[in-house]
Amino acid sequence: MTRTTRAQEDVVTQWGEVVEGFSRVFQLLTDDVEAEIGVPVRQWEVLVRLDQNETGTLSTGELGTLLSYPPSRITRLVDAMVTRGLVERTVAQHDRRVVMVTATDTGRDALQRGLAVHRRGLDEYVIRALGADGLRRLARDARTLGDANRS
Amino acid sequence: MTRTTRAQEDVVTQWGEVVEGFSRVFQLLTDDVEAEIGVPVRQWEVLVRLDQNETGTLSTGELGTLLSYPPSRITRLVDAMVTRGLVERTVAQHDRRVVMVTATDTGRDALQRGLAVHRRGLDEYVIRALGADGLRRLARDARTLGDANRS
Repeated sequence: MTRTTRAQEDVVTQWGEVVEGFSRVFQLLTDDVEAEIGVPVRQWEVLVRLDQNETGTLSTGELGTLLSYPPSRITRLVDAMVTRGLVERTVAQHDRRVVMVTATDTGRDALQRGLAVHRRGLDEYVIRALGADGLRRLARDARTLGDANRS
Repeated sequence: MTRTTRAQEDVVTQWGEVVEGFSRVFQLLTDDVEAEIGVPVRQWEVLVRLDQNETGTLSTGELGTLLSYPPSRITRLVDAMVTRGLVERTVAQHDRRVVMVTATDTGRDALQRGLAVHRRGLDEYVIRALGADGLRRLARDARTLGDANRS
């Protein structure tokens, strides 16, 4: 193997380590949230996005953009959440073709319980291993990656 | 909001940034591989795992463990890859209940073409933003996270 080839292999291996390490922690964190609140993590993420918005309400189109999901997937996800009583669907006042989504009291309760579990998990799985500085460093690298690769 | 609560919120926000930044790059890398070789990235990952093994052959059980997939998902994935001519299934000599999976020439060709695209993507999306040192630092942090959270 030439030096160049080996250096390239190293890059692939390093990225493989990045994916494996983060996938493992991501899985632990999401398993904990699902086990604690009994809601699939994809649904919990919708509640997080709604809560992050100032009005507490987002259109299905806005949710799709934020979560990088196609429209059909968002529709199914919101349907399932309405069935569980986590969100309500309303029609936008400015355009009756736009569907708006808002958390119910049940949804806001699930969000808060999930956040408490998520914080404990971050302490246990991330900060205990890397320290608070380590997480800040990771977040900075991730922002750099995100900014360099905007769509 | 008290200082403690704010520090906790920061941790959640930082982890959110980590997930978003890495998801974005992961999506770009896998989209490129899929577009170039015309094989879903989950199938390409199986080819990578087979190639990483010294014998080039793994049982479906070993693949399931490596990829953290349940048996039914591995069975479906291998079925689809056999249909595409990417892998062959054989029965283990030591135990006829064990199904072994080996890449075909077509599979090995798809693996190599995908690796070339993957390396270009890592240069473009990761190393251009963070430098080679940055990727090494990320891999080190990821190994630390993985080691601290072994199942």
